[in-house]
Amino acid sequence: METRTQVGIIGAGPAGLVLAHLLRQRGIDCVVLERQSRSYVEARIRAGVLEHGTVDLLTSLGLADRLHRERMVHHGIELLFERSAHRIPLTELAGHEISIYGQHEVVKDLIAAWDGPLHFSVSSVALSSLDSAPVVSYVDSSGVPQVLRCDVIAGCDGFHGVSRASIPPSVLRVYQRDYPHAWLGILAQAPPSSEELIYAHSSRGFALHSMRSPTVTRMYLQVRPDEDLSLWPDERIWSELRARLDRSESTWSLADGPILERSVAAMRSFVVSPMRYGRLFLAGDAAHIVPPTGAKGLNLAVADVKVLADALSSFYATGDSAGLDAYSSTCLQRVWRVQHFSWWMTSMLHPTGDDPFDLALQLAQLRYVTSSRAAATSLAENYVGFPFP
Amino acid sequence: METRTQVGIIGAGPAGLVLAHLLRQRGIDCVVLERQSRSYVEARIRAGVLEHGTVDLLTSLGLADRLHRERMVHHGIELLFERSAHRIPLTELAGHEISIYGQHEVVKDLIAAWDGPLHFSVSSVALSSLDSAPVVSYVDSSGVPQVLRCDVIAGCDGFHGVSRASIPPSVLRVYQRDYPHAWLGILAQAPPSSEELIYAHSSRGFALHSMRSPTVTRMYLQVRPDEDLSLWPDERIWSELRARLDRSESTWSLADGPILERSVAAMRSFVVSPMRYGRLFLAGDAAHIVPPTGAKGLNLAVADVKVLADALSSFYATGDSAGLDAYSSTCLQRVWRVQHFSWWMTSMLHPTGDDPFDLALQLAQLRYVTSSRAAATSLAENYVGFPFP
Repeated sequence: METRTQVGIIGAGPAGLVLAHLLRQRGIDCVVLERQSRSYVEARIRAGVLEHGTVDLLTSLGLADRLHRERMVHHGIELLFERSAHRIPLTELAGHEISIYGQHEVVKDLIAAWDGPLHFSVSSVALSSLDSAPVVSYVDSSGVPQVLRCDVIAGCDGFHGVSRASIPPSVLRVYQRDYPHAWLGILAQAPPSSEELIYAHSSRGFALHSMRSPTVTRMYLQVRPDEDLSLWPDERIWSELRARLDRSESTWSLADGPILERSVAAMRSFVVSPMRYGRLFLAGDAAHIVPPTGAKGLNLAVADVKVLADALSSFYATGDSAGLDAYSSTCLQRVWRVQHFSWWMTSMLHPTGDDPFDLALQLAQLRYVTSSRAAATSLAENYVGFPFP
Repeated sequence: METRTQVGIIGAGPAGLVLAHLLRQRGIDCVVLERQSRSYVEARIRAGVLEHGTVDLLTSLGLADRLHRERMVHHGIELLFERSAHRIPLTELAGHEISIYGQHEVVKDLIAAWDGPLHFSVSSVALSSLDSAPVVSYVDSSGVPQVLRCDVIAGCDGFHGVSRASIPPSVLRVYQRDYPHAWLGILAQAPPSSEELIYAHSSRGFALHSMRSPTVTRMYLQVRPDEDLSLWPDERIWSELRARLDRSESTWSLADGPILERSVAAMRSFVVSPMRYGRLFLAGDAAHIVPPTGAKGLNLAVADVKVLADALSSFYATGDSAGLDAYSSTCLQRVWRVQHFSWWMTSMLHPTGDDPFDLALQLAQLRYVTSSRAAATSLAENYVGFPFP
């Protein structure tokens, strides 16, 4: 069967779904295709820190009612090193708070509010004629081959998706950094032991204390990229978290509980440039990956699709393609700011190797960023996020 | 012959000479020993940027009359990248100016104003009994063996000096980083082409435009650590400087002239901890080396000896050794701040290798530091220098 739309969106993660809603708001038709099932994408545990800009955008789309009810608003984060905690007062320094609300909750809200074409569990997705009249062929969830013709394709299908892979490699410049560590993440049925996020640097490695709700904590441990999860029974995870989050100045203690989910995620920095090929526009993880230390992945994806929606809106309203032509360079300005910040947070907080100079530099940086107002403001303004273009 | 003093100072560079004057101001006797001749140390071309704290200290010692007459006061520096110049207004952001005045001019002023014991061209310097009653043996410039007994020795004899080498290696922790580049520095008879220092990042490598006087420029080029100076005739130096300092937005041009001096200096970060062994106290380059990109070497040495002079003053006045016992940890706080800053400036400005991610990170950092007031303030407050302890 053959259908037609203005914008074919590949991927129903935050990038694809926010783009769909933005396009609808602008009166532009779209069809969303997703390889996974609805239940899968609604349960996929990912990031949990929303910039104020992301919250504002979701609010302006009328998609944030539950977000506003259930989110946890934070006005600071803690940096813990040399067994002392130091607070970075985000709102005081940068004028904005952050919101704690799981990415999969955002996805649920976006799907629930969407009544346009959205096809889950599609397979054999292939993109063609990208430089003239794009065509998406796929097999729908009933096994029926389909053809979708569109003016433009938005590649929102993540790092491993078909979109970027459909571009001739010779036209893309790749920037990449692999890190010698990964995060072992757990979701646990336990109340947060602290009201704010705690980024902990210890000689044993990095740890992050975060939360998803008043009854669910989200914790991370720096491990090796090839770490074997079977070597991490619950008790080892909790005792390692306790050791890395230990502090000398109080009787702070870590609440534990049943571990609901655990996984190891590699850390990578990745950018392709340009983020466009003909009439295919890459957005979110399809174009760039940041290590999770800066809590930026979802927010950066939302910034991309905001730029794309505005450019498409101008294009359809006036025929002017200047916005589309500038899409890649506009996005890449923010992408590189966020890449640098994410690399910087990662480098500052993860002890690596045995070089004492490296460790001393990390501690010098941490002491400085927690004692200089200028340096703390620099961290804060990046963490809460710069205004969307 | 045997003499006695309170403080034996090894080395007549800025650290040793400033210490001598500080001790005299506090009524403490000292003897300064220097391996080189007076004419050698007075002609040794080194750093040229003085923090306001260094100027204030020299002024309070009555040693800054010529400095105040001849220095060039700068209220900003320029960062040049992607062929565009961006000014960091130091005084506006951090409340203090910097002074351009050659280190060898400081040394001349300090020697001219010193009428206490100062022995040049000594040889065979050896330190002993460092944990009880220190003894310095040496051969004076007439070839006569001498013994100097002191309460305390100040090791101000630089990275390659005998002081640090006299400490058992097992008691020192060494922190070190070698960089894959060096600076080719020239002193040229040419008026500065710009009023302020220009730190230039280009794909060809780093370059620094600085000056010593209205008629003498001091320029640097990033080169390989094993660079062969014979491959750099004058015309190649000037044309490479022109290429790296080129900018698109104006008709700026580089004034050239006869090259008076040229040398290649490796770049290194180095710290030993503690900076004390028994009654031997290390100060300046004897304890730590910073890459020159932050313009900190001389200023850090002066900060060290200020701490040492104050501690010795308390010790002789009241017998309280708390200041001396805290000497190393007090100094190392500033040392690590400065080490981090110097490493950061170096890493941001020197393209290395072929990794496009590294280059993109440098440019992202440069764009950020020249567009965020918080980030620019962070650079500025480090560059002008934090208050002396």
